[in-house]
Amino acid sequence: MPSVLKKIASLFRFYNEKDKRLAIAILQITGRRPLNLKLYKLAIRHASAAEVSGSGKNGNERLEYLGDAILGAIVAEYLFKKFPYKDEGFLTEIRSRIVNRESLNDLARKIGIGELIEFDAKRRVHYSHKSMYGDAMEAFVGAYYLDRGFYECKSFVLNRLIANHFDLEQIVQSELNHKSRLIEWAQRENKQVRFEVIAEQGSNHHKEFIIQILIDGEPAMTGNGFSKKKAEQAAAAKLLEQIRTAAAAAAQQQNNNLAENK
Amino acid sequence: MPSVLKKIASLFRFYNEKDKRLAIAILQITGRRPLNLKLYKLAIRHASAAEVSGSGKNGNERLEYLGDAILGAIVAEYLFKKFPYKDEGFLTEIRSRIVNRESLNDLARKIGIGELIEFDAKRRVHYSHKSMYGDAMEAFVGAYYLDRGFYECKSFVLNRLIANHFDLEQIVQSELNHKSRLIEWAQRENKQVRFEVIAEQGSNHHKEFIIQILIDGEPAMTGNGFSKKKAEQAAAAKLLEQIRTAAAAAAQQQNNNLAENK
Repeated sequence: MPSVLKKIASLFRFYNEKDKRLAIAILQITGRRPLNLKLYKLAIRHASAAEVSGSGKNGNERLEYLGDAILGAIVAEYLFKKFPYKDEGFLTEIRSRIVNRESLNDLARKIGIGELIEFDAKRRVHYSHKSMYGDAMEAFVGAYYLDRGFYECKSFVLNRLIANHFDLEQIVQSELNHKSRLIEWAQRENKQVRFEVIAEQGSNHHKEFIIQILIDGEPAMTGNGFSKKKAEQAAAAKLLEQIRTAAAAAAQQQNNNLAENK
Repeated sequence: MPSVLKKIASLFRFYNEKDKRLAIAILQITGRRPLNLKLYKLAIRHASAAEVSGSGKNGNERLEYLGDAILGAIVAEYLFKKFPYKDEGFLTEIRSRIVNRESLNDLARKIGIGELIEFDAKRRVHYSHKSMYGDAMEAFVGAYYLDRGFYECKSFVLNRLIANHFDLEQIVQSELNHKSRLIEWAQRENKQVRFEVIAEQGSNHHKEFIIQILIDGEPAMTGNGFSKKKAEQAAAAKLLEQIRTAAAAAAQQQNNNLAENK
């Protein structure tokens, strides 16, 4: 046995087999061994698994709340330093492209957190569209922060997550025109899309618009903004997100059906 | 001269008079001397002052973006540890009561950052309602973080800001019923207030409501939520915030008029 494996086996010798597997996975994901394994166990415990196991156990929602804030701060500083001549609007926009639910879902699957998640399998379909993966990704960052402190957590986020899994240049370049993407989607799906102003509020200097999107005449989403264009973009962005998560849930459902029919 | 003052005078001996005053103020506010004074100078430079001084200089908006994220993370962890048995909804709510614009405005004035802010005096009235103080408060936290690192910044926020200026028990107890507060306000001001559902969207399981508040029949604000009650609360909260900032701006205007008439 190579000496590094011997060392790991020795470090984890007091764990049972399941915990040993988890500890090794954490070592692989973060590059550091877990000091307090309980934190990570909580991070990968989805609410559905917590409910099944009885009222004594909680899910990862509290750690998700913490991880979300820590991740936001780390990415905020990273972009602040990376783009010294860009204004805060740009920094906020790029940050939201990095830490949005969809990209965190992808990230959790890529780095192997997806496979670790404990959840009630019966409810998988129901929960999958609710971004179980992205939630666990944030909770994992929260756990790592509590386990190893701010600077090791920052180094994990920057060196293992951002550097390996995000193409910053592409993120910056990608045009963010939600309205035209939505119109393209509607054309593909052979649906009619309409944008309507349903309300205006505030003074002349600071007027806010509420836009509603109608798909085949049915109200589908609203958005607010201090110009009609911004309100349209906001509404289209939210609706695209909803369409994407619905599509992901449908794909998951199909996978499950295939698995059952095997 | 007491030895501590001698030491301070010696530390700051290369600063000009203006910088010396700023350095002493920072020492009083944070308990630590500034290592990189430029960061703090930027933190207290409002966009209006930056515009006047010419295009070469920026305002504090970038630091505000950074400080907002750092402050959010520090308060998130503080509440996470303070309330081990509360769920993430509670933690999020209490955090927003601590770091909202209004409370940061107050905080900046209380700890003396308000007096340090550089702005274009001619535009004071115009800017005051835009929460110049709270913005500078966040930018200051961003500057302190860059100057002294995460753990000293955390200690500053927890020991100098939260512990001294927030009554957590009272914050938790304070009932958050925006709708009834708005109705009380309307009665005092002799105005009619009406809540109307202007749109519903989403599936049956996940229906979102858009509520519009009308003041004397005029559309004043909208709010979204996954129940009518939540949408009403959201709309009322936003409208109360608008009423408060407008009142603060009016009070400031009155002060300025009094000063001019002297």
